Amino acid sequence: MAGSSFGTLFRFTSWGESHGPAIGCVVDGTPSRIALSEADIQVWMDKRRPGQSRFVTQRQEPDTVKILSGVFEGVTTGTPIALHIDNVDQRSRDYGDIKDQFRPSHADYTYFKKYGVRDYRGGGRQSARETAVRVAAGAIARKILGDGVTIRGAVIQIGTEKIDRATWDWDATADNPFWCPDRQAVQRWEGYLDDVRKRGSSCGAVIEVVASGVPVGLGEPVYDKLDADLAKALMSINAVKGVEIGDGFATAAMSGEQNADEMRMKDGHPTFLSNHAGGILGGISTGQDIVCRLAVKPTSSILSTVRSVDRFGNDVELRTKGRHDPCVGIRATPVAEAMIACVLADHLLRHRAQCG
Amino acid sequence: MAGSSFGTLFRFTSWGESHGPAIGCVVDGTPSRIALSEADIQVWMDKRRPGQSRFVTQRQEPDTVKILSGVFEGVTTGTPIALHIDNVDQRSRDYGDIKDQFRPSHADYTYFKKYGVRDYRGGGRQSARETAVRVAAGAIARKILGDGVTIRGAVIQIGTEKIDRATWDWDATADNPFWCPDRQAVQRWEGYLDDVRKRGSSCGAVIEVVASGVPVGLGEPVYDKLDADLAKALMSINAVKGVEIGDGFATAAMSGEQNADEMRMKDGHPTFLSNHAGGILGGISTGQDIVCRLAVKPTSSILSTVRSVDRFGNDVELRTKGRHDPCVGIRATPVAEAMIACVLADHLLRHRAQCG
Amino acid sequence: MAGSSFGTLFRFTSWGESHGPAIGCVVDGTPSRIALSEADIQVWMDKRRPGQSRFVTQRQEPDTVKILSGVFEGVTTGTPIALHIDNVDQRSRDYGDIKDQFRPSHADYTYFKKYGVRDYRGGGRQSARETAVRVAAGAIARKILGDGVTIRGAVIQIGTEKIDRATWDWDATADNPFWCPDRQAVQRWEGYLDDVRKRGSSCGAVIEVVASGVPVGLGEPVYDKLDADLAKALMSINAVKGVEIGDGFATAAMSGEQNADEMRMKDGHPTFLSNHAGGILGGISTGQDIVCRLAVKPTSSILSTVRSVDRFGNDVELRTKGRHDPCVGIRATPVAEAMIACVLADHLLRHRAQCG
Amino acid sequence: MAGSSFGTLFRFTSWGESHGPAIGCVVDGTPSRIALSEADIQVWMDKRRPGQSRFVTQRQEPDTVKILSGVFEGVTTGTPIALHIDNVDQRSRDYGDIKDQFRPSHADYTYFKKYGVRDYRGGGRQSARETAVRVAAGAIARKILGDGVTIRGAVIQIGTEKIDRATWDWDATADNPFWCPDRQAVQRWEGYLDDVRKRGSSCGAVIEVVASGVPVGLGEPVYDKLDADLAKALMSINAVKGVEIGDGFATAAMSGEQNADEMRMKDGHPTFLSNHAGGILGGISTGQDIVCRLAVKPTSSILSTVRSVDRFGNDVELRTKGRHDPCVGIRATPVAEAMIACVLADHLLRHRAQCG
Repeated sequence: MAGSSFGTLFRFTSWGESHGPAIGCVVDGTPSRIALSEADIQVWMDKRRPGQSRFVTQRQEPDTVKILSGVFEGVTTGTPIALHIDNVDQRSRDYGDIKDQFRPSHADYTYFKKYGVRDYRGGGRQSARETAVRVAAGAIARKILGDGVTIRGAVIQIGTEKIDRATWDWDATADNPFWCPDRQAVQRWEGYLDDVRKRGSSCGAVIEVVASGVPVGLGEPVYDKLDADLAKALMSINAVKGVEIGDGFATAAMSGEQNADEMRMKDGHPTFLSNHAGGILGGISTGQDIVCRLAVKPTSSILSTVRSVDRFGNDVELRTKGRHDPCVGIRATPVAEAMIACVLADHLLRHRAQCG
Repeated sequence: MAGSSFGTLFRFTSWGESHGPAIGCVVDGTPSRIALSEADIQVWMDKRRPGQSRFVTQRQEPDTVKILSGVFEGVTTGTPIALHIDNVDQRSRDYGDIKDQFRPSHADYTYFKKYGVRDYRGGGRQSARETAVRVAAGAIARKILGDGVTIRGAVIQIGTEKIDRATWDWDATADNPFWCPDRQAVQRWEGYLDDVRKRGSSCGAVIEVVASGVPVGLGEPVYDKLDADLAKALMSINAVKGVEIGDGFATAAMSGEQNADEMRMKDGHPTFLSNHAGGILGGISTGQDIVCRLAVKPTSSILSTVRSVDRFGNDVELRTKGRHDPCVGIRATPVAEAMIACVLADHLLRHRAQCG
Repeated sequence: MAGSSFGTLFRFTSWGESHGPAIGCVVDGTPSRIALSEADIQVWMDKRRPGQSRFVTQRQEPDTVKILSGVFEGVTTGTPIALHIDNVDQRSRDYGDIKDQFRPSHADYTYFKKYGVRDYRGGGRQSARETAVRVAAGAIARKILGDGVTIRGAVIQIGTEKIDRATWDWDATADNPFWCPDRQAVQRWEGYLDDVRKRGSSCGAVIEVVASGVPVGLGEPVYDKLDADLAKALMSINAVKGVEIGDGFATAAMSGEQNADEMRMKDGHPTFLSNHAGGILGGISTGQDIVCRLAVKPTSSILSTVRSVDRFGNDVELRTKGRHDPCVGIRATPVAEAMIACVLADHLLRHRAQCG
Repeated sequence: MAGSSFGTLFRFTSWGESHGPAIGCVVDGTPSRIALSEADIQVWMDKRRPGQSRFVTQRQEPDTVKILSGVFEGVTTGTPIALHIDNVDQRSRDYGDIKDQFRPSHADYTYFKKYGVRDYRGGGRQSARETAVRVAAGAIARKILGDGVTIRGAVIQIGTEKIDRATWDWDATADNPFWCPDRQAVQRWEGYLDDVRKRGSSCGAVIEVVASGVPVGLGEPVYDKLDADLAKALMSINAVKGVEIGDGFATAAMSGEQNADEMRMKDGHPTFLSNHAGGILGGISTGQDIVCRLAVKPTSSILSTVRSVDRFGNDVELRTKGRHDPCVGIRATPVAEAMIACVLADHLLRHRAQCG
């Protein structure tokens, strides 16, 4: 109830601060007899890991995941799975200056007002470091969903730079440091982001995630609609300011005729002739691709001097030191994928309970 | 867990189908000794009530709310409050035709696939009729928040028609059937929507809701962030396809400098010099206005003939009879306000528990 | 979170006061396509109904249950089921005297201290009238469990009178007003209870409930063990002060050898040679009979004058008017059965989700 | 939902198996700015620690607790507190024999039937080793409750040996290995238990726990009554088969007059003249001592050969090796205290939310 747990039947509870000894989570609700190893999780951790290109934070964290419980002789036992990730590259000295100051657009002010105390080192609990455990939990969620479900994310806008959807190629996302699905845009984006980085500035991004192979029927009307839970999952990621399902905000300008996803029988199965809905109707999955988009605001830590106040009520000018991502949207991509996996796994179990 | 409850400490559980005898909800968690009468709720119901202009459904429902428990001698007792609304203008005969057919973009197909059975009369549980109880629960939430908190919604786009923010006037929203805050746009919108209506078509909308007077500190990091819960609340409303907080998707194209909400002391209090964040940082309210936007897709029921399938696996052509709103976005406005009130009341109680 | 909901996946949320217009509940999580009618529920209501013998309260309530949602054409639809019971025999005038006084052993004092206000008419929300909705919800739970599961309760002690287990006959429970399974004890109990009643006194009781046919595997280690949830369910019933599973408190004096339920293969199936455990090991059902006992304290309302205080801080002497049961344990029997049904149905769905 | 979390607002989620690398829990919901150190927790761990007398298991576990998050500069920050306890004295070789056999009265059979797989080493998740984390969480709960609340447990029966209540002395519980409050019984109990131990047998126990200084008003009617949650908490402890509040099962034989806790004003405050209710009326604390009793069955592991079956469907005779407590009731005492502390802390926060 204090906000550190996510999900209902597939549920993870996380803990840890940016500069504490470790971070981790407990994953409860995983069905038994699923093959699971640390390597199964590590592959997804490596995708989010910092320090892998000049476009992300230079903090060096191997993000090695240890499984401390819930797996015996290579399979899950149905009991809670504890995941543990040591923090190894804290540099808390970088943060002494902001001990009593509130960095604009960070959560320093709100944490302090809410709790009357805060761990200021690297942002403490508000740091995006927390998102590592989401990726770890997401790896287990993917195991529950099975190989038939594919969840893939791409960055479709970075600052003012967009992609050309006509040349979308999922394979391309693995070949560049931006998860960009448009090979022709990569070089342009590199130049753009190098410029942002060198100026000590930052930029936002838009991410699109598509889940394919999701069975029809997931989602619980009327308040735990699948899209409602996806919106919560994505909006809970640091720096996210907007979420769309299917055609999203564009539907406002559409007519009922344009927006209708008509149906026809094909090979004996009902099929949709379009997917404006993004794979969800009435809060329940249709069996089509589930399409989500999220907007990530520019990294709040910038090298420019900004105006703020301190906890003693003084006006101050401050400049954020420490290491950070020029565009946090990049590393948010595997996090968004993971959260969608968690929501789908949760709703799969919920569906089994009532309708299985 | 089956999706009919919303909230945690301030929590309502709803029930009822479009063409059943009644709809209602149980509101649990209301603090005791709050003055509450049926009239306090009715005023908000009347704002959402159908049949009030030619731009909304012609179904005539007085939506009279009865309080069946939890209030004694004019004040809440701390026990659950049961709210009951009779359905009086069902015309189930209108729906016999679609008993076995799936209306495109409605949830007929997904409900049937999920449950193996469905109440087809007026959409049953998937109908927007359900949203009446959200407004009733929201009225109680407003009482918990108190007079210091104001939650107001406006339609800022209807189909392809937008407003001019320079002439925004909150008072204007009460003077036209669209909750339009721009008086100069009203006549233009009337013409636009009359055209849509006469063609038997429909259009979408964008709604903006602003909550003022919200105290700093509401929201539970990291998964129950205030914006995450708002996103879920809004995305759970029928036909909503997108949600933004503060500058939303526009932040993707902004720099860290542009997006920063700098601070200065003013009259002895920390104040923000801008509100790109929409009143929430790190998932916790800042004390500034909370600004949300939501996109509502065009009403799925249109008079055009569309292609679909039936439950027996046949291709069909169908045309939706029954009464419906040419733009459901209009009546979604008081619903969105109510859901935001519920989220805020819930987080106020959660804040009290841990930090009070 | 304010305590008006019970269960997780099979969950009911109740409302209503003793002397309000009605009481009821919303049952969420019922699987779809289960045949359900009001008559299916009424049969259990009638078992608990007041006014049926001189040994229970003379309040005349038909306890007619109306289903307002969630059932269509005779089967459940998977959407919430609203159950509504009108109160028809309130006599609030009986309670004016205790408006400002706290009846000993009732919850008048604690409700007033907790909430600062109370509906004193017939005890308001603290009244055992609330238990009627538990029986209604339990009827739906039984439908989920199916015909293979039988849940039967018996009163095995009433005041100082006990039964002889050697002559236990389940059929006998239907033939006397005490749910007594020992025909030889009935006449003795009648005399005993007539004496209690005529003196305006009251007595307690011990109830035993046995659930047969429960599949092996229900229960969620380690905090939601099946026995833990049963204990909560039974202890939540008005006036209950003790709960036992299997041999209960008697196990304290047993040796490990005496308490062991040994196993042997029989007809190809593992079977237990005894059932000291009461059908639950490690919080998970074994497939044997689940055996629970609960102690019900004597009715707090008695005709003797007792010492108390009023809300203004004065010493008072009071005598409880109104109608009441000389032994509330009698009518608690169908309530206990119903609560056990609800716990089992909930755990059946939970088991399906993770292990199904 | 899979049972590894306890509590609602003060909530801990635990993980770990008897012979895994470690056990631990995440405690969420602790208010900020509470002084907390590892030493504050360790003092309670040491009370439950194995290997401290010949009457408990000889497994040597220091049970050193590490705080990995949620505490900064000596105070809680309001974020989740991760507690970590390494397992250091596993001897898994002791358990190879029972890999495929079901030990009677243990949960081997039910875990295997539920999950299709089990970690048989030392009982895996079903082991009482798990209760160490309850004690750790309970230490934090006590900090929330503050110094005004005292929670003390005593063993009042061990096998067939009971205490004389007339010579009850709380201080005595710290002076003997049984938490026995009757100094005159200690030597007799030593002889009794030595005999049990030498025969390789085991015995049960009854524990009484009293919480003093609990404020009036805690508990949420009607399903989350304080006594209902206490019953669940206590019944969830390994080997517990019965729970009583106040006079418990004895109330069945009492009259309403005998059971009434009359009230009188004293020094300007309402006071009770007796405490048959055990400090709870209508599920809400009265401000009097909260009195709970629990029955613990004899340790299931005994040296006698018993009849059972194996997973392949064969009859077997087995004898449990490994180290175990001749009377698990002894070490259950600090666990019961801790669970009661957790329930009270949870309800204190819940009360603050709605009524604070």
